[in-house]
Amino acid sequence: MSDIKLLINQILAFRKERDWKQFHENPKDLAISLSLEAAEVLEHFQWKSEEEIKEYIKTNKIAIGEELSDVLYWVLLLSNDLGIDIKDAFEKKMKKNALKYPINKSKGKHEKYNEL
Amino acid sequence: MSDIKLLINQILAFRKERDWKQFHENPKDLAISLSLEAAEVLEHFQWKSEEEIKEYIKTNKIAIGEELSDVLYWVLLLSNDLGIDIKDAFEKKMKKNALKYPINKSKGKHEKYNEL
Amino acid sequence: MSDIKLLINQILAFRKERDWKQFHENPKDLAISLSLEAAEVLEHFQWKSEEEIKEYIKTNKIAIGEELSDVLYWVLLLSNDLGIDIKDAFEKKMKKNALKYPINKSKGKHEKYNEL
Amino acid sequence: MSDIKLLINQILAFRKERDWKQFHENPKDLAISLSLEAAEVLEHFQWKSEEEIKEYIKTNKIAIGEELSDVLYWVLLLSNDLGIDIKDAFEKKMKKNALKYPINKSKGKHEKYNEL
Repeated sequence: MSDIKLLINQILAFRKERDWKQFHENPKDLAISLSLEAAEVLEHFQWKSEEEIKEYIKTNKIAIGEELSDVLYWVLLLSNDLGIDIKDAFEKKMKKNALKYPINKSKGKHEKYNEL
Repeated sequence: MSDIKLLINQILAFRKERDWKQFHENPKDLAISLSLEAAEVLEHFQWKSEEEIKEYIKTNKIAIGEELSDVLYWVLLLSNDLGIDIKDAFEKKMKKNALKYPINKSKGKHEKYNEL
Repeated sequence: MSDIKLLINQILAFRKERDWKQFHENPKDLAISLSLEAAEVLEHFQWKSEEEIKEYIKTNKIAIGEELSDVLYWVLLLSNDLGIDIKDAFEKKMKKNALKYPINKSKGKHEKYNEL
Repeated sequence: MSDIKLLINQILAFRKERDWKQFHENPKDLAISLSLEAAEVLEHFQWKSEEEIKEYIKTNKIAIGEELSDVLYWVLLLSNDLGIDIKDAFEKKMKKNALKYPINKSKGKHEKYNEL
């Protein structure tokens, strides 16, 4: 089985056992969760230089992985509840990105597509 | 092959072809991207009532799916660059969540774990 | 004295007494703070209906005011450090907004200026 | 007159002329705006080294000032609508911060108050 589907199933089972679907009726709140969890990832890197971040990562992989998992949780749950096949959406978006950033124009350059 | 690994490979190939790894040296910037893309998901739901959101979703699934894909992109890229196995991290986090929110205590309740 | 200037002076005195200017050399970190504090404001309103928010505000004005103050803190500090006169910038932005949203076109309508 | 009050009056006049109060009934959406505008400030500093940011600021003060003004706009509007006197809240928060970070303990140190 697809492991994305597997993770989604874990989330749905977790929610069902706790009868929490009733709290997830408004996608706005799910999207807020996504945003708040992304902020928690960011917090790990604040006030640190690149060097300090390198050191920090060595001893905080589990904590950062947990925050990234929280973001992933809401990406998967929100996709599921909105009826979006996230794997399919992702692959289509990557194709779109490839058109926005053609290799010959964007290689080694960091400009946004509309500035290339 | 695991489809999460498959998506990560797509991201890494995309980056390699464009020689963009050099711009991704500072995880702080990757985490900012994650946060900015999460904000773009949220923007879809702003200024709308629950009813309006239901209508909105019907005709904007592709656009929302693209934004969710952008968030997923940074979750997967950041995990990869930090040496975090996101699937493994996710499953461990789910187990931790299950301990934080035991079914008998949290069923049908929406309090945070420290208020249960 | 302008009370915005007064608040900025309080911030600068607070920072000087603690010798914290050295940690504020990178505006990127100050902007991250701004973003994280805005997330904390948002958290107060999550998972609540409009009715529940009305009730919540009654008893949580102090806590919400503290979070809004934290956002204001970083707006003022960041402006100061970047050499931006925030009062002046604000009044200019309001004039720009007035041009983007002419009364006759935008009255009672909530579309973005580029959709009016 | 207090210039904070002056800015709030400008916002309220702007809103009244456009009859936009009706769209601001749910503080959740105002708090989302605050968060989205803070993200736009942050975007200015992304993908740039400290050196590059210094250069960038020189020629982008107006643009950054506009984004900071947008954040200030929502801080002031949200405070007003929630019945919070933001100047008073700010000064109280600064006193609380002074207690959390006593000069003798926090001078030259960047730890969070609970780690001092």
